[in-house]
Amino acid sequence: MKQRIVECVPNFSEGREEATLLAIEKAVESVSGVTLLGREADADHNRSVFTIAGEAEAVCEAAVRAVGVAVERIDLRQHQGEHPRIGAADVVPFVPVRGISLSECAELAVRAGEQIWQRFGVPVYFYEAAARVAGRERLENIRRGQFEGLIEELKVSSERAPDLGNGQLHPSAGACVVGARKFLIAYNVNLKTERLEVAKAIARKIRASSGGMPHVKAMGMMLHSRGQAQVSINLTDFEVTPLHEVFDAVVREAASFGVEVAGSELIGFIPRAAVEAGFAAALRFERFRKDSVLENSLEAKLES
Amino acid sequence: MKQRIVECVPNFSEGREEATLLAIEKAVESVSGVTLLGREADADHNRSVFTIAGEAEAVCEAAVRAVGVAVERIDLRQHQGEHPRIGAADVVPFVPVRGISLSECAELAVRAGEQIWQRFGVPVYFYEAAARVAGRERLENIRRGQFEGLIEELKVSSERAPDLGNGQLHPSAGACVVGARKFLIAYNVNLKTERLEVAKAIARKIRASSGGMPHVKAMGMMLHSRGQAQVSINLTDFEVTPLHEVFDAVVREAASFGVEVAGSELIGFIPRAAVEAGFAAALRFERFRKDSVLENSLEAKLES
Repeated sequence: MKQRIVECVPNFSEGREEATLLAIEKAVESVSGVTLLGREADADHNRSVFTIAGEAEAVCEAAVRAVGVAVERIDLRQHQGEHPRIGAADVVPFVPVRGISLSECAELAVRAGEQIWQRFGVPVYFYEAAARVAGRERLENIRRGQFEGLIEELKVSSERAPDLGNGQLHPSAGACVVGARKFLIAYNVNLKTERLEVAKAIARKIRASSGGMPHVKAMGMMLHSRGQAQVSINLTDFEVTPLHEVFDAVVREAASFGVEVAGSELIGFIPRAAVEAGFAAALRFERFRKDSVLENSLEAKLES
Repeated sequence: MKQRIVECVPNFSEGREEATLLAIEKAVESVSGVTLLGREADADHNRSVFTIAGEAEAVCEAAVRAVGVAVERIDLRQHQGEHPRIGAADVVPFVPVRGISLSECAELAVRAGEQIWQRFGVPVYFYEAAARVAGRERLENIRRGQFEGLIEELKVSSERAPDLGNGQLHPSAGACVVGARKFLIAYNVNLKTERLEVAKAIARKIRASSGGMPHVKAMGMMLHSRGQAQVSINLTDFEVTPLHEVFDAVVREAASFGVEVAGSELIGFIPRAAVEAGFAAALRFERFRKDSVLENSLEAKLES
């Protein structure tokens, strides 16, 4: 059977209570075929991010169960933290990894959203590729005013009413923003220089917002412990802009300042397809077939 | 359960009779968990190469069954072809792909060899990583004199007697050379020039035999249809010499002749590990963890 592998990265408004984080973990792991790949909690933000992956339907059910635990255990009326939020289970994005398209992940998001409303009475907004209302593609539009502001606004206007629900927020759990987006690669290139302005200039040159490469977000940072400036990059569509091209652009721009690249690093995960695309670009293959990778051929035959 | 994936590339002294090739295919496919990834037959050489892969024990059994069919159907006394050979099933190398070491593949080769002698009465030589006698690492040493010459030589001297057997060759099927070796990547880099001498000079510069890169074999070729010279490369240990370094060396050497690289191509398969190593080298990762590839993490957790 052909595998449909999905990643889900739910964000919860809890970064301090270990008991709650463990309960969420347990809910995720109660679904077979789902793997918890990572969990990051930030006490200042009072927020946590879980990375789960596996077969599409299983990941959907695991995400819904995790939301259920968050709804039960997190009370936004008591919640304080630096990060903006409108929900106990704040954001639930589904991300295609292999054998599944972005629009199929958007359908998965809809099924998850329906379950969240039906099972827990928490209203749902759909965002990014799952958005139903113009403007709701962007998370910041949905989250404007946060939990406290949105409750007040919904009393006087239905303009910003959730896509699923009764027009109000859940009294303690707010709303849940569910959607689908492409895989985000978090990637840094370290420079053999202490000059932060070089990293900033390179970031400006390559990022999409200032006319650089599509789907590239970048900023200059200082790694004080290493005495190196760093170009910190988010690549939101590696199919349009291969990671290798981003690296090459940084090397080229750095050279124009007489600066060399020290090396690069990944934060979190990269999908296999991005590795293959980067490899094929780096070695300038005239025609790189996925099936040329022995294990891919083997898996394709076993799955067919 | 942890997977041990092995490739096996048996060579048979038959490149013309489709019925025999089909019978070998059928023998391979009679073992579950084994995939036939490719089959190449050459009528002039009167020889065929099968590429099979899958779980270690299953591949071993499939290779032994395929040898059995070859022993039954191919008579070397009638065999003519340009390629040197001493057996109906001439060479059977086992190649580690994932989750298995070269020495474990050598043990697999020993088990296959024992089965070949016990079940079919065909004597066996062990070569490369499975060699038991000094000098037998190299196939050309074992195969010297071919089937006809070796039969005569064994009548008067036991020096070249097979590692398993009764000191003689099988009357119609000769002997079988079984062993283990690392994965061989066949790879070409095409040049934007019609000057064959440039490709030849680059090949000389990069190949191990003339002091170039370890585990690299290379020669210059002419692609008449494209009007391009080509550096044709066999890389016999991508763990020691990453493919990306070979490509970079060709680019660099070509540049010294004022020649650009048009692109590159794979012949056959490449293991996933070589793709990951090439990607990591191309983007100069300071620390590339296999587990950073999402699917690898997922599979590792599912297999544990």
